[in-house]
Amino acid sequence: MFEQLGLIGCGLMGGSFALALKQAGLVKRVVGYSKSPTTTERARQLGIIDVEAPSALLAVSGADLVLIAVPVAASEATFKSIKHLVNANMLIMDVGSTKRDVVDAARSALGPRSGSFVPAHPITGKEVSGAEHACADLYAGKQVILTPTESTLTVQLGKAVALWTALGCSVRQMSPDAHDAAFAAVSHLPHLLAFALIGSISSQEQARDFLSLAGPGFRDFTRIAASDPVMWRDIMMANRQELLAQTALFKNTLASLESMISSGNSEALEGVLQLASKARGRWHMTAQKTAK
Amino acid sequence: MFEQLGLIGCGLMGGSFALALKQAGLVKRVVGYSKSPTTTERARQLGIIDVEAPSALLAVSGADLVLIAVPVAASEATFKSIKHLVNANMLIMDVGSTKRDVVDAARSALGPRSGSFVPAHPITGKEVSGAEHACADLYAGKQVILTPTESTLTVQLGKAVALWTALGCSVRQMSPDAHDAAFAAVSHLPHLLAFALIGSISSQEQARDFLSLAGPGFRDFTRIAASDPVMWRDIMMANRQELLAQTALFKNTLASLESMISSGNSEALEGVLQLASKARGRWHMTAQKTAK
Repeated sequence: MFEQLGLIGCGLMGGSFALALKQAGLVKRVVGYSKSPTTTERARQLGIIDVEAPSALLAVSGADLVLIAVPVAASEATFKSIKHLVNANMLIMDVGSTKRDVVDAARSALGPRSGSFVPAHPITGKEVSGAEHACADLYAGKQVILTPTESTLTVQLGKAVALWTALGCSVRQMSPDAHDAAFAAVSHLPHLLAFALIGSISSQEQARDFLSLAGPGFRDFTRIAASDPVMWRDIMMANRQELLAQTALFKNTLASLESMISSGNSEALEGVLQLASKARGRWHMTAQKTAK
Repeated sequence: MFEQLGLIGCGLMGGSFALALKQAGLVKRVVGYSKSPTTTERARQLGIIDVEAPSALLAVSGADLVLIAVPVAASEATFKSIKHLVNANMLIMDVGSTKRDVVDAARSALGPRSGSFVPAHPITGKEVSGAEHACADLYAGKQVILTPTESTLTVQLGKAVALWTALGCSVRQMSPDAHDAAFAAVSHLPHLLAFALIGSISSQEQARDFLSLAGPGFRDFTRIAASDPVMWRDIMMANRQELLAQTALFKNTLASLESMISSGNSEALEGVLQLASKARGRWHMTAQKTAK
């Protein structure tokens, strides 16, 4: 049970975290700050936060739990702005989709105080953003990846594991680099491909006709292309090395499929499609199996 | 109202068509044939067909409506096997995802009798196949594209439009070539990309770890990669020219995104992501708006 959550960023992810904590009875008071005062105000009106703070530093004042739910590119500035109030009794987490850059930002901004920071990536989201879409069950039944480093305080790591578990999440730990390599493959690259497909179709003269014919397969495939462009710009830039490596591997596979198609090699094409279809058929979201 | 449906192919698409017609009271009797006798038998046990036919020709005997729901690569052989019973009072349709190859197959196999054939592509499906997944509402509220040619009989085209409309579909007409170009962009390429992504991830040593971390975005993006590999091999081969043209355009867009990422050009990257996100946000499935 926490006394006070300092919430920095009252949008979809941060707002849902506050609501989930409140619903689970894990926090007494939520003090929130967003860069945009209208977001902070809306979050209070929606009952997401109890008190509006005029700065990130003041949101952290008196908090024993801090969640930083800002775009990953704003992590370092956020750590800097709160560093004077960070102490060893405080659990600080983020919810960013990349971890190496956030870990580096924490170390650089907080120095030895970065031990209070437990980097976290809950695997959830919506293609819409903002406090008005926050909901208490965004995290339940989902996976949360924690990427502690050698300097992370064990006591805070333990609190983080207990907290997410209490919210109904299945918690895993790995290194920031292993995290970023995996998510380049299963998240950042799919987003890049979905954005690229929409971009490619939109740039064609017949775009409107084409899109009017698209069905449920297209709808699901491109759902992630409606995601927040600024957030995804930051993620792609932050994890560019791993993302470009995965893109190169993907292009090799695509090129070999193209060559089977253009040369009429049905048998080879079927072989690759069979393997992919089986692999996808076998796959199930981990947290779906372990939770609920 | 039709007297007798001759159903060639009693799988998901064909079986659902028979169930939908029965539910709407549009057909008195369904005679079915599948290449595999066990499929035909299961379709009868499931109430999809009333009578099992031992051949495609015998399924057509006495029918005033014929649906060919076989893989597109089997179209020509199917047309040939039934041509002696095809007449001008019969409406013949298919449900294939490509149209130029099916139109050519009908003309080549049926000659002047191909006027009874109204090429049809209902934009629906599931990532599972087989009679046991057939359901009466697979077509309701969906788009159906008809691609008549100059030799299509007006009377049969009129019956086709009325039939699909009665099943709750929104019906559009276009040329086979326009159809194939559009579906290369909004269906065949997305499938190719989804298969390629799964193939690329699966070929990596850490595939199992990576996949265990994938979340809802990955789930939706790759859902179509679980589709029937043989069917998709045939579609990709049948529409290879348009598919490879769309793949080339896609690769250009992807390459320009990669170059923005590798050169750190955040502004340009954000511009492309903004446009794509807006385009995807504006898009809605046409039939969803017009039906129900």
